[in-house]
Amino acid sequence: MHVIDPNNKARLLAGAAAVAFLTLPAAHAAKPLAEKPTVGDLVKASKPSDWRQLEPDNTVYMDLPGGRVVIELAPDFAPNHVANIKALARDNYFDGLAVIRSQDNWVAQWGDPDEKNPRPFKTAKATLKAEFTAPMKNVKHFTRLPDVDGYAPQVGHSNGFPSARDPKTGQAWLAHCYGMVGVGRDTDADSGGGSSLYAVTGHAPRHLDRNITVVGRVVSGMPLLASLPRGAGAMGFYDKPELNVPIGAFKVAADVPEAERSKFEVMRTETATYKAVVEAQRNRGGPWTKVAAGHVELCNVPIPVREVK
Amino acid sequence: MHVIDPNNKARLLAGAAAVAFLTLPAAHAAKPLAEKPTVGDLVKASKPSDWRQLEPDNTVYMDLPGGRVVIELAPDFAPNHVANIKALARDNYFDGLAVIRSQDNWVAQWGDPDEKNPRPFKTAKATLKAEFTAPMKNVKHFTRLPDVDGYAPQVGHSNGFPSARDPKTGQAWLAHCYGMVGVGRDTDADSGGGSSLYAVTGHAPRHLDRNITVVGRVVSGMPLLASLPRGAGAMGFYDKPELNVPIGAFKVAADVPEAERSKFEVMRTETATYKAVVEAQRNRGGPWTKVAAGHVELCNVPIPVREVK
Repeated sequence: MHVIDPNNKARLLAGAAAVAFLTLPAAHAAKPLAEKPTVGDLVKASKPSDWRQLEPDNTVYMDLPGGRVVIELAPDFAPNHVANIKALARDNYFDGLAVIRSQDNWVAQWGDPDEKNPRPFKTAKATLKAEFTAPMKNVKHFTRLPDVDGYAPQVGHSNGFPSARDPKTGQAWLAHCYGMVGVGRDTDADSGGGSSLYAVTGHAPRHLDRNITVVGRVVSGMPLLASLPRGAGAMGFYDKPELNVPIGAFKVAADVPEAERSKFEVMRTETATYKAVVEAQRNRGGPWTKVAAGHVELCNVPIPVREVK
Repeated sequence: MHVIDPNNKARLLAGAAAVAFLTLPAAHAAKPLAEKPTVGDLVKASKPSDWRQLEPDNTVYMDLPGGRVVIELAPDFAPNHVANIKALARDNYFDGLAVIRSQDNWVAQWGDPDEKNPRPFKTAKATLKAEFTAPMKNVKHFTRLPDVDGYAPQVGHSNGFPSARDPKTGQAWLAHCYGMVGVGRDTDADSGGGSSLYAVTGHAPRHLDRNITVVGRVVSGMPLLASLPRGAGAMGFYDKPELNVPIGAFKVAADVPEAERSKFEVMRTETATYKAVVEAQRNRGGPWTKVAAGHVELCNVPIPVREVK
């Protein structure tokens, strides 16, 4: 069977959103790595200290009919929006609302389908001042990629998030890669607040960077959003209410009983192991690859995630 | 309603795969364009000579239960594989086979689900010498993008296809953007022939460029492939035969009665209008955009397609 790139097995557990359902081994045997290890080899050989658990207070679960979408929030980049999204979750704002838009090669978006009788806000705010960028000094652990990027002076990973920055302005921002979650807004920059959210389901629309507040990343469950039927309405909105995909619950992980939490670990992007992951993607080894790219584009760098059973 | 980027309406008709169902107006009123026209504005103001029809002999239709996938083949880049895929179609090779793989943020792949009793070949060949690159001189109408690309010395569009080239080697190749169609292979470079094909359904895996024979682009029907349920097997293969998505027919458009053909036009990428499209994406105008990127990445440039009723 032609499989297109057997090395790609690594992506099964390492893609922007794909997740491996690995059990954590009790001990890590120190096996010698191949001369050009794959991302999968590196994950297998990694140490426990190469990983961090998701913080329950900065993780939200969106339960859809098909399963759970797990989103890691990025308070370094958008502290006010992250706080507001947690307030919305704690107000049960999203429970019973829906995914109302799926536009091919673009986004899936969720929020209130009822424009005429919108759900009222309780403790959360309807709108906030935009957080399109954040001061670089607020962002932990920037590990810069060695390669050029056309959209930003510097790109790399900050504590597990693809990000960019400009030393001239001192600002940093999250990059619109596959699986990133952002805040829908109208024309006014300050017209969003988190009650309308979307996840990128297509090729990274990097031209949206610094035009929208990005709040986090889907670490599990992207297929639940990316494989939704595309909406037939303008911009992929569902044109019939019965096509909306109901949100059963949208909760902060910390508010979910521990036994019901999804336990994920994300590779620490400030580690030597992650630098090796980047290099494995820049110059892929193995017998399948005939020409190594010698380059990696920000949104093509896997950010390994694994489930801890 | 928060819509995320109203300018994005242009994408509805201009994305790598999205298609507008416009009727061709009888006459084109010469309306003045806005100072910073959107892609949609440019499409509306375009002249008939900015467009070309798909050539029926270089177009294939794959009919799935949900509708038709229309693929434009690129004989300039992969003449032998294109000829072989047409031979496969004319042998009715794919009819009754299936989409057997859908891996999130990667590809949907189709071919023979039966490894034990594979469908025999008739006039088409099982394998061909790889066509990962083609001589630059064989490729018509390269319109270079003004921006840097990390994966290739030069990138741009060749007769409607995103492509790259290296003047030092004199070689050109198709780029793995969203919606591009390639030939599955095993480890041996010459182990593919076109009986196993895939379309890119996620972020462009440009590191596959020059590692695989790319044969064309989906110009209509990407949602039929991109919204398929993801396979639970390794690398997204469906793990149960009943999940395979049957291919009703796979035919060269020229072999389909004219009344049953899908009539699409693609914007000519060698025109001044297309240069304006590129610029509209590089520096987007309108009240929604707060920071214009001043850059466009190859796979983010829309290639407008429209249906002619």
